[in-house]
Amino acid sequence: MTDNQQSLVRVEDGVLRIAVATAEHGTSLSPEGMRQGIDALRSAGPEIGAVLLVGEGANFCAGGNVRGFAAAEDRSAHLFDIANLFHDFIRALDAIAVPVVAAVHGWAAGAGMSIVLHADIAFAGPGTKLRAAYPSIGFTPDGGMSWTLPRVVGLARARELILTDAVISAEEGVRLGLLSRIVGDDEIQGEALRIARTLAHGPTAAYAGIHRLVNESVHRSLSEQMDAEAASISAASTTPTGIEGVDAFVEKRRPDWSLGANAAQQ
Amino acid sequence: MTDNQQSLVRVEDGVLRIAVATAEHGTSLSPEGMRQGIDALRSAGPEIGAVLLVGEGANFCAGGNVRGFAAAEDRSAHLFDIANLFHDFIRALDAIAVPVVAAVHGWAAGAGMSIVLHADIAFAGPGTKLRAAYPSIGFTPDGGMSWTLPRVVGLARARELILTDAVISAEEGVRLGLLSRIVGDDEIQGEALRIARTLAHGPTAAYAGIHRLVNESVHRSLSEQMDAEAASISAASTTPTGIEGVDAFVEKRRPDWSLGANAAQQ
Amino acid sequence: MTDNQQSLVRVEDGVLRIAVATAEHGTSLSPEGMRQGIDALRSAGPEIGAVLLVGEGANFCAGGNVRGFAAAEDRSAHLFDIANLFHDFIRALDAIAVPVVAAVHGWAAGAGMSIVLHADIAFAGPGTKLRAAYPSIGFTPDGGMSWTLPRVVGLARARELILTDAVISAEEGVRLGLLSRIVGDDEIQGEALRIARTLAHGPTAAYAGIHRLVNESVHRSLSEQMDAEAASISAASTTPTGIEGVDAFVEKRRPDWSLGANAAQQ
Repeated sequence: MTDNQQSLVRVEDGVLRIAVATAEHGTSLSPEGMRQGIDALRSAGPEIGAVLLVGEGANFCAGGNVRGFAAAEDRSAHLFDIANLFHDFIRALDAIAVPVVAAVHGWAAGAGMSIVLHADIAFAGPGTKLRAAYPSIGFTPDGGMSWTLPRVVGLARARELILTDAVISAEEGVRLGLLSRIVGDDEIQGEALRIARTLAHGPTAAYAGIHRLVNESVHRSLSEQMDAEAASISAASTTPTGIEGVDAFVEKRRPDWSLGANAAQQ
Repeated sequence: MTDNQQSLVRVEDGVLRIAVATAEHGTSLSPEGMRQGIDALRSAGPEIGAVLLVGEGANFCAGGNVRGFAAAEDRSAHLFDIANLFHDFIRALDAIAVPVVAAVHGWAAGAGMSIVLHADIAFAGPGTKLRAAYPSIGFTPDGGMSWTLPRVVGLARARELILTDAVISAEEGVRLGLLSRIVGDDEIQGEALRIARTLAHGPTAAYAGIHRLVNESVHRSLSEQMDAEAASISAASTTPTGIEGVDAFVEKRRPDWSLGANAAQQ
Repeated sequence: MTDNQQSLVRVEDGVLRIAVATAEHGTSLSPEGMRQGIDALRSAGPEIGAVLLVGEGANFCAGGNVRGFAAAEDRSAHLFDIANLFHDFIRALDAIAVPVVAAVHGWAAGAGMSIVLHADIAFAGPGTKLRAAYPSIGFTPDGGMSWTLPRVVGLARARELILTDAVISAEEGVRLGLLSRIVGDDEIQGEALRIARTLAHGPTAAYAGIHRLVNESVHRSLSEQMDAEAASISAASTTPTGIEGVDAFVEKRRPDWSLGANAAQQ
């Protein structure tokens, strides 16, 4: 069964699970996973509270399908199409405004590493390895790596990590801020799913607001951002989620976030 | 005695000390501290060489007064007013261009954590804990947290820390770059005051220039910033502070920064 | 022999080596090194594949020549000229788009620390020490330090490191992301040269693209950057470098990057 014949996305308990790579083509980025992922992300309704990104083969994602690049009649056109498909996936991931969790086992190289840099929470194990992997085939980055990485480690270290094609261990990845936390290699998927489920049943209206504020902060001055924050916190306080959050706090009970979720679905 | 009846700001030896929270209302952000702080920051003359931010209760600041939110007749209007008052405080803090030191003991949650992210130097102790604390009541951040945090740890880790409402230990806070250094819990205020005093009697004209250059760098290209740096260092070299600094270096003696301070006051 | 009489730049095996300071004037920033460096960087052709920055005295670079500042008839004009010369060097370094390696032994203070922050790879040893060093003479930063540093550690820690004039050890420098790696003090130059040579014979067309993408990312949105990345990776795939990279990968052999280098020289 090839990628095209199987479903690479599924929804379970509020979590939209997307396989960005499979065992096919050396666990390289799956164009079919991108296509199905884009459709699922764009059509997601309020029943989706979190996204879980996984690889279904031996790695999270070992990068682009280099054999496919080599075999293309017009390499330039092929790369342009593949990159644009990949980037539409990243744009859809960025637009959905629900928490994104990545279960990063084995290699996350090239496009795989690019994806990890977009995840709100990235679980790794001792066997996880990140690598830019672009210059080793004479290429330049895609998936936004040249934009996200400098915002984590600064421009100089970003250039270094990409230029030198450094293999980054899980521990180093956490130290640099590229990965969130390390669990056992065989616990990565379970832990990532557990957190994704928990977040999917959390205060999703607040999560959407947090996602928007943080992402929009990039092009704003501090003062402009505080105006946006004031508008957002004021609006949040009268949503079902914000009302329940404050009431539960005062009444010293656990908030029932399903109130907000139900309201959002109406 | 309530907050309104006591002075939450005082000037001592060149240091403007502002209490951002008191024991009242569960060590939540003090609107009176904000009001008095704004007035003091805006009217500060050259006699003020540093700002020291403290909490007067058991914590630095445990966040907004959630009971106050719950009790408000119009929650949305109340939150809007509170956030704008808070943001005017942050703007005044940002505008004064003297070093800002925070003595962060116990919890710095929500608005408290937001304030810490604006301090040039943030002292913590083993008992210090940071927490975004917004989504747990169904809210989104304020105080500029959605702007400052991504600039320290990148967008993904910023979203993670806010979304998951992670409790951040002092050690983790230093590792992430949110806190400066750890001393004993009962030494935090003393050490913070000591540094604030030292800075208040330092080369304040240079400090003001450093503050402006770093903050203005956000929206400039590297080349534009270097033009601003060249203008600034050239101007600095003929201020009393810059003349004294260079002369003292060449004469192998300690600079007398009071020369610059006196000149600035004239 | 003074700086003016000797050559402070030389090309060896594809590496442009520039001495930013010599034993003269207390290992301070060498204006002659800047002038020769600017000329060499601007006139560099495809035979240059990497830049190596070194100090030829006891330190990498101990900062500006403060005695020279003191002796200037017009300090303001002198500082303006020196800063602009220095900044033209940084601009030329930024424009050449080949990997920049710094061999940072001993002190990298003031302008020396500024230079380190522009290097893609900065080698240090246990004896390496960084220090902003501007406020101690009543000055404000130059060399882009007020722009690069906040992008590595955030605005607050950047202000702290500059304001407090902290001495930063090699270990702390690596932790903060200011330095790349630590080797023995007497291995710094050798290791830096070795890496510079390796990079000089690598996929230089890809390195140039990586350099441009990362640096241009600063003022772009994520979506705009991904458009630039798609154009770049598509173009790379049909350069001699990109063709050789993909072909070698598929044929399971080491790529011969001289193909790309030769092509670039034609």
